[in-house]
Amino acid sequence: MFSGPRTVFYISDGTGITAQTLGHSLLSQFEGVEFQTISVTFVDDRTKAKQCLQQIRDKTKPGEHRPIVLSTLVEGEIADIVGEADALHVDLFRGFLTPLEAELGLKSTHYVGRSHAVVDTPDYHRRMEAVNYTLNHDDGLTNRNLDQSEVILVGVSRSGKTPTSVYLAMHYGLFSANYPLIPEDFERGALPGGLEQHREKLVGLSIEPQRLHQIRSERRRDSVYASLENCQHEVESSQRLMRRYGIEWLDSTTKSVEELSAAIVQQRGLKTTMF
Amino acid sequence: MFSGPRTVFYISDGTGITAQTLGHSLLSQFEGVEFQTISVTFVDDRTKAKQCLQQIRDKTKPGEHRPIVLSTLVEGEIADIVGEADALHVDLFRGFLTPLEAELGLKSTHYVGRSHAVVDTPDYHRRMEAVNYTLNHDDGLTNRNLDQSEVILVGVSRSGKTPTSVYLAMHYGLFSANYPLIPEDFERGALPGGLEQHREKLVGLSIEPQRLHQIRSERRRDSVYASLENCQHEVESSQRLMRRYGIEWLDSTTKSVEELSAAIVQQRGLKTTMF
Repeated sequence: MFSGPRTVFYISDGTGITAQTLGHSLLSQFEGVEFQTISVTFVDDRTKAKQCLQQIRDKTKPGEHRPIVLSTLVEGEIADIVGEADALHVDLFRGFLTPLEAELGLKSTHYVGRSHAVVDTPDYHRRMEAVNYTLNHDDGLTNRNLDQSEVILVGVSRSGKTPTSVYLAMHYGLFSANYPLIPEDFERGALPGGLEQHREKLVGLSIEPQRLHQIRSERRRDSVYASLENCQHEVESSQRLMRRYGIEWLDSTTKSVEELSAAIVQQRGLKTTMF
Repeated sequence: MFSGPRTVFYISDGTGITAQTLGHSLLSQFEGVEFQTISVTFVDDRTKAKQCLQQIRDKTKPGEHRPIVLSTLVEGEIADIVGEADALHVDLFRGFLTPLEAELGLKSTHYVGRSHAVVDTPDYHRRMEAVNYTLNHDDGLTNRNLDQSEVILVGVSRSGKTPTSVYLAMHYGLFSANYPLIPEDFERGALPGGLEQHREKLVGLSIEPQRLHQIRSERRRDSVYASLENCQHEVESSQRLMRRYGIEWLDSTTKSVEELSAAIVQQRGLKTTMF
């Protein structure tokens, strides 16, 4: 048997985002296999296609597995050149475009780079505005323009509010704010000022104390802040506070920002831009 | 001929991110067709599969086009239930998993939700740390820990630095900082303090003055800041400054954050986490 990691090429005529996202999702179905991935992006003319072909051939050594090539090349001619390589070719476009063309009774534009020519669309504009809004409303920075927000995350420090807010903005175009719940809030037994009037937008994040302890210790080892005891106390207090206000929460211990964001959008029935 | 928008279902046993990303990329190849997209996420048991089937059937009306179903359902049984709907089915997993299984000589885990069970991986951890780093180093907020950064974006206000930094962090796990180039810098003819020693990490963003004028006017109409004349002056001055320091720049006028980020990663040969 051959050994060593399997080489995977993501080849695209654009940014490679689609190839990488789908490819990662596919490859993660095979546990125990080690993959070495190489992205080749903006392969959008014959010259670059030939360079790419050579790059694949340089990586193909006798006695080793042939590479796996995952491609999103819209232009047939370019796909053909890359297709000459001795590899397992998985063509993410051709496998799908043909049935879609038949269904829609239309030829696809087959236009190089088209799939990301989105800068002038209202959706793109909205996503960028949402990212700017979210950075200005991270971690309770300001109460200004909070009525513009579509979702407001609350939770203890380091429970995942910031990356989730950013993801909601970048991918769903949602104006997202987030507020930390801190010991002062627990003592008062009340939400940070100004949030009560936006209760219908509030979404809680919680986390297991042990995991929180671990995360906080990376930054401030041996501090009271990071101690397991304090983490337990803060998590319990935050859940008590959220319960009091009828705020539902999600658990970031085992859910990624992608999963948390999708769950929030679905549970709240939020209207989003499609990216 | 039937008329009206085509209904597209994105159906997934997880967050639906993969289905949506690939689906959008595929559908954007068909210009002039209007699509109405519906996401059904977390379809991970038989009951939810049957609800989903009913949802598709409710949307299928006599005299109208049948829906298009783009799915990433790993479990065969669930895919089969959804597959009973009268629709064009594009199964994003089965079309690819079979050849990959043959190539790798392995059965895929076919594990529901596996493709996003990433929270415990070092890559995920790094991406979250990168997002936190980037928010703390947005818009020249601080020079602290700048030696930890992997890329530092510079450009005039509203040239796209913030969303690009955030994207680089979220998707590539890169510790990204960004600094505005402001009139004071142009007068001094020098970069903001502290950046010179990190010259090899600097990447410029530029933008066409007309577009900058448009973007700035949305926030501060009729201000000097947003005037076309001032935008022209700032863009020219920033390019002069970048040229002086040998900083290459990219143009955000027509490039999306996805494209800018991919180009930066490729041009700089940056080592990234795969998402």
